[in-house]
Amino acid sequence: MQAFLEEAKKSSRTIANLSTAIKNKVLNEMADALLNHCDFIISHNEKDMSNAKLNNLDEALLDRLLLTGDRIKAMSDAIKQIASQTEPVGRILDGWVTKDGLNIQKVSIPIGVIGIIYESRPNVTSDTAALCFKSGNVCVLKGGKEAEHSNKAIAIVLREVLAKNKLPEQAISLLPDSTREGVAKLIKQDKYVDLIVPRGGEALIKFVSENSSIPVIKHDKGLCHIYVDKDAAPSKIIDIVINAKCQRPGVCNAMETLLIHEQIAPYILHGLEDAFSEQGTIIKACPETLKLIKAIPATNEDYDTEYLANILNIKIVKNCDEAISHIQKYGSGHSESILSENYSTVNKFLNEVDAACVYANASTRFTDGGAFGLGAEVGISTNKLHSRGPMGINDLTTFKYKIYGSGQIRN
Amino acid sequence: MQAFLEEAKKSSRTIANLSTAIKNKVLNEMADALLNHCDFIISHNEKDMSNAKLNNLDEALLDRLLLTGDRIKAMSDAIKQIASQTEPVGRILDGWVTKDGLNIQKVSIPIGVIGIIYESRPNVTSDTAALCFKSGNVCVLKGGKEAEHSNKAIAIVLREVLAKNKLPEQAISLLPDSTREGVAKLIKQDKYVDLIVPRGGEALIKFVSENSSIPVIKHDKGLCHIYVDKDAAPSKIIDIVINAKCQRPGVCNAMETLLIHEQIAPYILHGLEDAFSEQGTIIKACPETLKLIKAIPATNEDYDTEYLANILNIKIVKNCDEAISHIQKYGSGHSESILSENYSTVNKFLNEVDAACVYANASTRFTDGGAFGLGAEVGISTNKLHSRGPMGINDLTTFKYKIYGSGQIRN
Repeated sequence: MQAFLEEAKKSSRTIANLSTAIKNKVLNEMADALLNHCDFIISHNEKDMSNAKLNNLDEALLDRLLLTGDRIKAMSDAIKQIASQTEPVGRILDGWVTKDGLNIQKVSIPIGVIGIIYESRPNVTSDTAALCFKSGNVCVLKGGKEAEHSNKAIAIVLREVLAKNKLPEQAISLLPDSTREGVAKLIKQDKYVDLIVPRGGEALIKFVSENSSIPVIKHDKGLCHIYVDKDAAPSKIIDIVINAKCQRPGVCNAMETLLIHEQIAPYILHGLEDAFSEQGTIIKACPETLKLIKAIPATNEDYDTEYLANILNIKIVKNCDEAISHIQKYGSGHSESILSENYSTVNKFLNEVDAACVYANASTRFTDGGAFGLGAEVGISTNKLHSRGPMGINDLTTFKYKIYGSGQIRN
Repeated sequence: MQAFLEEAKKSSRTIANLSTAIKNKVLNEMADALLNHCDFIISHNEKDMSNAKLNNLDEALLDRLLLTGDRIKAMSDAIKQIASQTEPVGRILDGWVTKDGLNIQKVSIPIGVIGIIYESRPNVTSDTAALCFKSGNVCVLKGGKEAEHSNKAIAIVLREVLAKNKLPEQAISLLPDSTREGVAKLIKQDKYVDLIVPRGGEALIKFVSENSSIPVIKHDKGLCHIYVDKDAAPSKIIDIVINAKCQRPGVCNAMETLLIHEQIAPYILHGLEDAFSEQGTIIKACPETLKLIKAIPATNEDYDTEYLANILNIKIVKNCDEAISHIQKYGSGHSESILSENYSTVNKFLNEVDAACVYANASTRFTDGGAFGLGAEVGISTNKLHSRGPMGINDLTTFKYKIYGSGQIRN
């Protein structure tokens, strides 16, 4: 493991200093190579699929695992799109002249070696490898066990392009020991690895956060709320809350709990009940709500649950303050939204709620690299530092100060 | 410990939302309170001083620990200076409109609860408390055991001002259990603490990095180099390298190893030998250097040592590439400098060396919040992410996205 990571670290100096032209050439060749080796990749994916069927994985997981010609075409297109993004390295983030006449530039640079731990979908392998390469980073990938053969095939194809271009193949590596013990070793190698990005279940993220000596950027759960204020515009309410809950209930930016101001609740709850019923949503509700509509009584545990399913908690609150308190207590700091036409209430909510994304009068479903306009995303960071919310390619860079002097010494 | 941190976390919402006017009023009152309670603080400092003498602490440590009227005046002035800095919270860092018409603002916000672990100097207590308060953060301070009474006295004075202004006193807290076990517990409380900043010895920093489940911003050692290229301007060399080594050898941005291009070495080494000899610098040198001047032979271990003393390694290298390789191997990513008038060589060095601060034609001693023009500093971060190099007050903020919609739902 150590020798492997030492090689990865060594190659990072080469990768960090590649020109945009070379990086884009290599990425476009990688995109073509995926198409040219479609059959090779599919034949390896078939091994994973038949193992998965033997292990009785459920339909949803099988679907996430499956690669087809169309899906490989989509992976190839994603790499081309990443190649076309603006160069993330070398951006001048800030700059000034000091009283001593030193010319300071704060410049974006690659992070170095990034370990990424993720689950089933094999397209994450090519997406992540391309994002890391474009941003001048070396990646050490640890995919799900169930996608082992697919990930290996994809890595072989991408690494062949690196070799053909006389670049170190270690720049795109799969972790050799992909067991839990392998991960446990990886996250202690702070000498060689600069960042760990765990995407996956809560147990994995907890294990990595608690045991890593390397900085971690978590992609943890999203427990998102919408607060319907007494001054919400009635015409917008139903569309937004239905979109936030029902358009894709299994994703992290979907709403789990709807908070409603007590003064508006009697006027909107019946309409909401009908609209959610049409969507087949299961409603759990607080005692005050249960006086107005029929639903399952909600428990404190329900408020603390990311359903990832078409289930919604509804709670009536006295005012914006109570809504904010509820969000601070149960929210995961992901995406929170207020529906209100009141200037001061909106400002209060946007200022006081501590979350990656706080919305006024929009669905929480927009928390996404694509919807934000950031291009391909590494994921949605639930960290508070370095990267927060949609993690685009610029978040795969850090910075250094370049200081241009003319003989200065310190007094 | 948990109940204590829960209170700290709770108070962070109040502190995060204070106006600039109130924060500055409170800070100026804190500055006055330090002066008004000068005798009280000095009487507590005397207890620490007499304990320290009983424990035979050396002169340098005793001097760092000592508080006098003048030093308390300096602490008071530092708080006033922090109050006068530009508001770090609410800066719009970026902003754009998405294709759906969402107006996105990336806005700086306080980090939350920050745990800071540091050593002897009691002025760090008031400086850090003021920096955290100005940036809307709650601080949990763990100072050195030897400064226990002084730190307590300072905290009492500052907290009294918070109470008088009806603000939660927990906003400035000393860790109740200040033993190593207390620190071990603190760094696992990721539910309540958002950031840990360890400043101090290597053992402490290693322990915190390896065991914290909270993000850590290290203030680790500085093993800094200057590379004298063959195209260095002869008139600048001696002033810069003497400044970098000798002006204050005990600090992290002082030079430890001088790398010299083989073509220029014969012309400058005798001059350097004389200049360093005048400063009483002990020279350790590579075999090639020893052919030209008298010195102690340098070992690989010497290249790996942060002397914090008036000792210097000198090594002759073949070219800029060898200098960069040496720096990548032995440097701590703190501050590195090249002396050269060659445009391409300077660019190569500034681009390829991975360190917080890379200089051309200046002393490494400028890596400092004050010299950078950032105002009071928390320290010099040796992290690669979030904060790198001089950590000013803006580095005590993170960000969130405020998203202004008008009824948008996701397709």
